[in-house]
Amino acid sequence: MIFQAPESLSEQIAQHLGLRIIKGGLKAKERIQELKIAKELEVSRGSVREALLILERRHLVNIYPRKGAVVSELSAHHVNCLYDIYIKLLQMLISTFAERWKESDLNQMISLIEVLNKLTSSPEKPVEKIVDVGFELLGMMYPIVNNPYLEETLENLKPGISRVYYLAMNRRKDELHHPREFFDQLVSGIVKRDHISVNKAVEAYGEIQRSLALKALQELEPSGANQFNDS
Amino acid sequence: MIFQAPESLSEQIAQHLGLRIIKGGLKAKERIQELKIAKELEVSRGSVREALLILERRHLVNIYPRKGAVVSELSAHHVNCLYDIYIKLLQMLISTFAERWKESDLNQMISLIEVLNKLTSSPEKPVEKIVDVGFELLGMMYPIVNNPYLEETLENLKPGISRVYYLAMNRRKDELHHPREFFDQLVSGIVKRDHISVNKAVEAYGEIQRSLALKALQELEPSGANQFNDS
Repeated sequence: MIFQAPESLSEQIAQHLGLRIIKGGLKAKERIQELKIAKELEVSRGSVREALLILERRHLVNIYPRKGAVVSELSAHHVNCLYDIYIKLLQMLISTFAERWKESDLNQMISLIEVLNKLTSSPEKPVEKIVDVGFELLGMMYPIVNNPYLEETLENLKPGISRVYYLAMNRRKDELHHPREFFDQLVSGIVKRDHISVNKAVEAYGEIQRSLALKALQELEPSGANQFNDS
Repeated sequence: MIFQAPESLSEQIAQHLGLRIIKGGLKAKERIQELKIAKELEVSRGSVREALLILERRHLVNIYPRKGAVVSELSAHHVNCLYDIYIKLLQMLISTFAERWKESDLNQMISLIEVLNKLTSSPEKPVEKIVDVGFELLGMMYPIVNNPYLEETLENLKPGISRVYYLAMNRRKDELHHPREFFDQLVSGIVKRDHISVNKAVEAYGEIQRSLALKALQELEPSGANQFNDS
């Protein structure tokens, strides 16, 4: 593996390790050893430490003083907490977009949603592409909403959301039949600049994702059922 | 300045530099030179780099590849964006707390609010103590709300909020007459587990803080008036 500019080295290491966590190669609670990673990737230990700080910011690892880094947990409680905040911030982003869009933004949004609709109703339902186009849709809203704190916070939640989505979709692809209705509702809310229907559509969408993720997790760790009650 | 355990060295450096930014010693857009800081504090350059990543997470610096770290901007637009997201997340925290408190939580909350009321209605209005007790109030709600993503996000916004608060309060202390009413409304909403009045009280409070901050900023940089429109 060769790392090069333009991203900083620590950012590249963070992306590499991050993908391994998102796709399940590195499991929840697994220790990440700085030295081992540094040797494996032929980079300095300092760069690995910086990468781990970036991954902590993205909620994929936890760093404990004198103990080192561990892949973050993914219990039902974590999935619930993640969707609770993600849904609120998505509502904030999309309803602000609904307030501020101009004609050309709307066209760009509608064409991305058409792509998403095709992908999610195709027999293959390619998880990776669906995730990418979904985030591209948020990405096109950022400059219009123009709130750097909201953007950073959502960007930091994205890897966790991707991780949950991979987990859920790789087990329950057959249940991914909701988006068409959802996207229709969403587009109509945005076009009418109607906050209430935008917020409802986003919540409905988030709740479907949440419940698929919880079912997938339940299948993986049936004993984790208790974690539903640990809030 | 001597740094010691238990916090990690990079965390201690981050807190030291963070306070200098919050209290205005390091100004917006000022460059932070790794080497200079490393010499000044007698620490390694690697530890300073880690500290800067921590400060970037806390929205106090921006790091540009090959250019290094710069103290983050603080325009009217930034203040507006910060309060937009902070108010939403505070509403989420406090209305979830309103749902879940138990008798003993309520007593702890009420005694902290009494302390805050005394501080904000005292002639001195000690900014540092008011900030500390205000955040202590949020801190006591975290374990009851029990959402690690919300907690981390709020913790990362706190330094930015403190920075704005210092700026506003050092110039406009005389206008800090609102809290009594606000706190009465807030407590009554929480006691009745009434989301709507909790959300209203939090919003009213946030809007007062926002407008004090914008006035203070306006006095500092009258030419910045245009920045109100750059969203």
